Amino acid sequence: MISIVILGTGNVAKHLYDAFSATNQVKILQVVGRSKEKLAVYSKLSEVSMDYGNIKEADVYLIAVSDDAVNEVSQKLADKKGLVVHTSGSCSLDDLSPIQRKGVFYPLQSFTKNKKVDFKEIPICVEAAQKDDEIVLKQLAHLISEKVFNISSEQRKTIHLAAVFVNNFTNHLYQIGSEICDENKIPFELLHPLIKETANKISVLNPHEAQTGPARRGDKITINNHLRLLENKTHKEIYSLLSNSIKKDYEQKL
Amino acid sequence: MISIVILGTGNVAKHLYDAFSATNQVKILQVVGRSKEKLAVYSKLSEVSMDYGNIKEADVYLIAVSDDAVNEVSQKLADKKGLVVHTSGSCSLDDLSPIQRKGVFYPLQSFTKNKKVDFKEIPICVEAAQKDDEIVLKQLAHLISEKVFNISSEQRKTIHLAAVFVNNFTNHLYQIGSEICDENKIPFELLHPLIKETANKISVLNPHEAQTGPARRGDKITINNHLRLLENKTHKEIYSLLSNSIKKDYEQKL
Ligand SMILES: NC(=O)c1ccc[n+]([C@@H]2O[C@H](COP(=O)([O-])OP(=O)(O)OC[C@H]3O[C@@H](n4cnc5c(N)ncnc54)[C@H](OP(=O)(O)O)[C@@H]3O)[C@@H](O)[C@H]2O)c1
Ligand SMILES: NC(=O)c1ccc[n+]([C@@H]2O[C@H](COP(=O)([O-])OP(=O)(O)OC[C@H]3O[C@@H](n4cnc5c(N)ncnc54)[C@H](OP(=O)(O)O)[C@@H]3O)[C@@H](O)[C@H]2O)c1
Repeated sequence: MISIVILGTGNVAKHLYDAFSATNQVKILQVVGRSKEKLAVYSKLSEVSMDYGNIKEADVYLIAVSDDAVNEVSQKLADKKGLVVHTSGSCSLDDLSPIQRKGVFYPLQSFTKNKKVDFKEIPICVEAAQKDDEIVLKQLAHLISEKVFNISSEQRKTIHLAAVFVNNFTNHLYQIGSEICDENKIPFELLHPLIKETANKISVLNPHEAQTGPARRGDKITINNHLRLLENKTHKEIYSLLSNSIKKDYEQKL
Repeated sequence: MISIVILGTGNVAKHLYDAFSATNQVKILQVVGRSKEKLAVYSKLSEVSMDYGNIKEADVYLIAVSDDAVNEVSQKLADKKGLVVHTSGSCSLDDLSPIQRKGVFYPLQSFTKNKKVDFKEIPICVEAAQKDDEIVLKQLAHLISEKVFNISSEQRKTIHLAAVFVNNFTNHLYQIGSEICDENKIPFELLHPLIKETANKISVLNPHEAQTGPARRGDKITINNHLRLLENKTHKEIYSLLSNSIKKDYEQKL
């Protein structure tokens, strides 16, 4: 049985709380947060506290607060014997500066409030300053996920960068698609199946093979028609830049 | 019972053939194509022909050939009494110029060879020169899909443009993500669950609400770190342009 304390009451705190609660090998000793309302969700099944000066002794402390508060919260744990980890893709191990036994427990997923996820499929990237602690984190991660990876702070930076492209920027393309639909009174829902299939395709084809469309074919007529149709200047620029980037990828391979 | 002839033996022809074969209200009279090998797949259950001068009489002709061959193939059907439709998102009704009873039967999805799709969920956009024919196409579409829409050639152009953003360009962002991973010896598979969840989120949040990341937060430090990490000049440009576009969207709302 591994005992843990969760610090933070946001999205990631809640998803990890639920995932660990569903195993019977973790005892969640306490949830520590700033907001009484948010703590109420946890108070039925766990001890809760708003006092960062009164944190229980545990095997592992999970700091699941906003990136820029990770260091501040870690200060409150400086005298703890347990292993202190944050859950951030962009913070490094050093952001837990005052801590001796420190690590990272980063679930590589984009969580949404009230939207359940299947934790078994979520890659968990772990890192620890000490070898023994890495083993503890891997054990902990394996209780909720089948996909556990040792990832250094350096590698995590790269993953976070790639995630910005495939998650944040992709979502922005959905946003542009939805604006184009709105302007022309077409329900954006028409594109939902296409969006989902585009994402699901990565299981059977790598993106290089899966690429289709006018830029891939070098179809200048369609590209020019599209540029004429686009009214928003930024959307035009994005269309040109991405089309040229696709063209370049395939010209190189000829 | 509606009788149809399918012209073409590519991706869309095969998926439509399978979908219609699974209903018992359509009789596929003939599949017409240029390649003996490709026709072989159909010859067990249907008549096949390589002779475009010897096409059977049917209620509906589905032209599922490459966009730039749609007009050429339609010429061979000029004397038919049946309704002639193409399956293209980018061709207009007028590309079937020699035909009187003409229409469009456009399944709004990205098909992959050998990858099954659930046709029930695929929006089918229909259009016809004559009202009666539109009714026939809607009946036909409803046999395989629950989502059937009247979409004009003008609207279809817009949908195709939006689809380039959410499908072709999104796939290119996956490609960039996979290159960033490769360069740093990180398996791209790590990002698969994130990619799928990003797409699935559109069912519960619109893209404007779902947007996250450094540009959304106005986190200049992370943006500059990322630009420094990126070595590829085009990737840097794409990162800047999309980040600025996101920033602008949220500044406007302040
Ligand atoms: N969201 C994701 O999809 C995701 C995925 C993987 C990793 N992560 C990482 O997980 C961590 C938490 O993210 P999240 O999405 O759960 O954030 P969130 O939903 O915005 O929640 C942030 C939490 O941090 C608390 N907090 C903020 N500033 C604080 C401070 N100065 N002192 C104490 N508590 C503070 C907030 O408390 P109040 O409610 O009182 O403001 C809230 O409980 C971050 O490091 C993030 O990078 C997020
Ligand atoms: N792929 C998609 O996801 C998708 C989705 C919706 C709509 N569409 C539309 O559906 C149509 C077919 O696309 P597809 O993806 O099925 O294409 P595809 O897999 O590339 O197949 C193209 C077919 O067209 C035939 N063809 C090409 N030029 C021809 C010519 N001059 N005369 C006779 N046949 C010719 C090809 O014959 P050979 O095999 O002998 O070359 C092949 O059977 C296009 O209008 C496309 O825009 C495609």
